[in-house]
Amino acid sequence: MKPMRIALLGLGSVGRGVAKVLANPEYGFVITAAADSKSGAVAPLGATLDMCEVFARKNATGKCGDSAWSAERIVREAEYDILVEVSPTNAQTGEPALSNIRAALMRGKHVVTSNKGPISIAYPELSAVAKEHNAGLMFEGTVAGAVPIMNGLRHGLAGNRVNALFGVLNGTCNYILTRMEEEGLTYQQALLEASDLGYAEADPSADVNGTDAAIKLVILANTMLGMNVTLDEVVRVGIDGMTADALMMAGKTGHTIRLIASIHPDKRQLEVSPRLIHKEHPLVVDGTLNAVTVDTELAGPVTFIGRGAGSVETASAVLADLIALKERYGDK
Amino acid sequence: MKPMRIALLGLGSVGRGVAKVLANPEYGFVITAAADSKSGAVAPLGATLDMCEVFARKNATGKCGDSAWSAERIVREAEYDILVEVSPTNAQTGEPALSNIRAALMRGKHVVTSNKGPISIAYPELSAVAKEHNAGLMFEGTVAGAVPIMNGLRHGLAGNRVNALFGVLNGTCNYILTRMEEEGLTYQQALLEASDLGYAEADPSADVNGTDAAIKLVILANTMLGMNVTLDEVVRVGIDGMTADALMMAGKTGHTIRLIASIHPDKRQLEVSPRLIHKEHPLVVDGTLNAVTVDTELAGPVTFIGRGAGSVETASAVLADLIALKERYGDK
Repeated sequence: MKPMRIALLGLGSVGRGVAKVLANPEYGFVITAAADSKSGAVAPLGATLDMCEVFARKNATGKCGDSAWSAERIVREAEYDILVEVSPTNAQTGEPALSNIRAALMRGKHVVTSNKGPISIAYPELSAVAKEHNAGLMFEGTVAGAVPIMNGLRHGLAGNRVNALFGVLNGTCNYILTRMEEEGLTYQQALLEASDLGYAEADPSADVNGTDAAIKLVILANTMLGMNVTLDEVVRVGIDGMTADALMMAGKTGHTIRLIASIHPDKRQLEVSPRLIHKEHPLVVDGTLNAVTVDTELAGPVTFIGRGAGSVETASAVLADLIALKERYGDK
Repeated sequence: MKPMRIALLGLGSVGRGVAKVLANPEYGFVITAAADSKSGAVAPLGATLDMCEVFARKNATGKCGDSAWSAERIVREAEYDILVEVSPTNAQTGEPALSNIRAALMRGKHVVTSNKGPISIAYPELSAVAKEHNAGLMFEGTVAGAVPIMNGLRHGLAGNRVNALFGVLNGTCNYILTRMEEEGLTYQQALLEASDLGYAEADPSADVNGTDAAIKLVILANTMLGMNVTLDEVVRVGIDGMTADALMMAGKTGHTIRLIASIHPDKRQLEVSPRLIHKEHPLVVDGTLNAVTVDTELAGPVTFIGRGAGSVETASAVLADLIALKERYGDK
C-alpha cells in the first residue's frame, strides 16, 4: 500500500506528537507539508519533509519554514491526501482552521482534526461538504483525548440508541476537584497547583466555567447523536464557586462532586454542572483523566476512561482516525 | 440497501436477544433460517422466518422446527449471507459450533459469533479460512458481553502497541467478591446468593476457578494481540479459597481483591488470579459488571466498562458486528 501524504497544520504540542508518531514508517504515512501560524514548509513533489529539521528550524527561528507558504496556501496548493489540522482552538469563530478544513474538503482531501472549534461550530456544513466531495472527515481527538469515544459510539455500540450520555470531559476541573476532595485544598489552592503542574491554561476560565466541556458536548451531540445544537443551548455552571466543605459533606455519604457534562437527546437537554456522584460510579476518575458513560438501549451503560489530553495521547486519537481513513480510502 | 440474510444458530438467551433486536427492520437484516440443537426452521426462498412463531413452537413442543433441518444442514444448504452462531459454548472441543462456523466460512458466508469455544480453540485456522474465502469473521460478543473491547482495540486504539491488558472478565466472580467485600459474606454465602439471582451457572466451577476468564484471555491474546497461545498456558488461580477476612484486610488500606485476568504480550504471560487492587482503580467495578484496562504505548491506559453478559446486552455486541459486516460487504 502506498503511503498516504499528510499536510500537518499546527506544530504545537499535538502537532509534535503527531509528527513523532508518524515517524514510524510502519503506519504508512508521510508528511509532505507542514505549517504553523507564521510559515510553512513543503516538500518537493514526490519527497517528504524531514520533520526533525522543520522543528529545529522552528525552535531556532520561530518559523518552521518559508513565509510564502501560509497554512492557507498549503491547504489549497500543496500535494497531500489528508489534512491533519491540530492548530489551537478558536472557540468563537473556529478560524483559521474552519476555512482551511472547508477548503481541503472542497479539494476532495480527507481531514483529521483535534481542533474543537470547527467541529463544534460547523459540523453540519463540513460533513455535507465532505460527503459531496467523497472525502473523510474525522475528529476523535476533539473530545476526551486518547479515549476512543467517537469510535465507540459510531462502531462499538453501532445500532444502539443513546438514551443519555454523561461525561467528565475537562481534566483541569477534574484535577482541581480531586485535589480539593483528597487534601481539603481550597479552590484557589487547587487551581494554583494545577497551573504549576501545567494542567491549567494561563487563562483557565473556559475550563473552570464549564465552557470547554460544553463545547465537547456540542460536538458529541451533533456528530454522534444526530442533534443540531449550539453552545448557547448548553446550561453551564462552573466549579469556581466550589468549596472544600461541600466536598467534605458529600464524602460523608460516600459521594463526591465532579463536573459532569450530560446530554439527554430526547429532551434536547445539554448541561455542564458540578454534581453529587457516588464515589463508586465509574465516572469518578482521578486527576486529569476523562470518562464518558453512555446509557444505551441495548448494551446498557458503557463507560470509557482514559487520558483526556497530552501530546502523544491526542496524537493517538489522530492516528486511529488516519488508520481508519487509510483502510477506507487508501489504495491497496 | 438490500437486507442481509441471517442464519441464526442457537435459540437460547442470546439467540432470543438477537431475534428481538433484529425484528427492528431499520437495522436491515432478516432471519431466513434458525436452528436449536434439535431441529431447524428454514424460510422458503425469498421469504423470511417469523421468529415469534419459531419461538412459540419451541416453547410449545421443545423443537423450533423440523428435525430434517439440523443446524449442520442449514449451514451447508440454506440461503443466507451471515451465520450468527450463538449456541452454548463447549470449551473443550468447540463443537458443534466450530464445524458449523468453518463450513459457513468455506461457503464464503460471513460469521458473527458470541461462542467462546471455536474462537478460543481455533482462531488462527478460522481466520485463515475466512481470509481465503473473503468472508468476515467477527466475535465481539465472546468477551465482556456488551463492552466494545474488540472494536476498541482494533479500531479505537488502532496503531497502539498494547503493553499490557488487565480485565475483570467474569461477572459471577466479580459479584461474589463484591458481596463478600460489602456485606462480609463468606464465599459460600455469596455464591449461593449469586445462584439465587441467576448470576451463577448450575455448575459454577468454570467461573470460580478462573477458566472462563482464562478462555476470554486466550481470545483477546490470539485475536487482538497477535499472539498464538492456548488455554494451558494461562496461569489460573480461582476465587474459591477467598475469605471475607482477606477482603477486610485489603479494605484497611483502601484496597480490595478482584479476579484479575492479565496479559503481558512481550513476556508471553497470561494469568487469572485474585489480586489486591486499589478501590479507586477503574477496574474495580460493582456486581456483575466487566471491565478491561488496556495499557497502550501512545494512548496510555484506557478502560472500558459495561455489562459482561445478558441476552440483549450480548445481542448488542452481535448487532455491532453485523452492522460492521453490512458496511463492509453489504451491497449498497
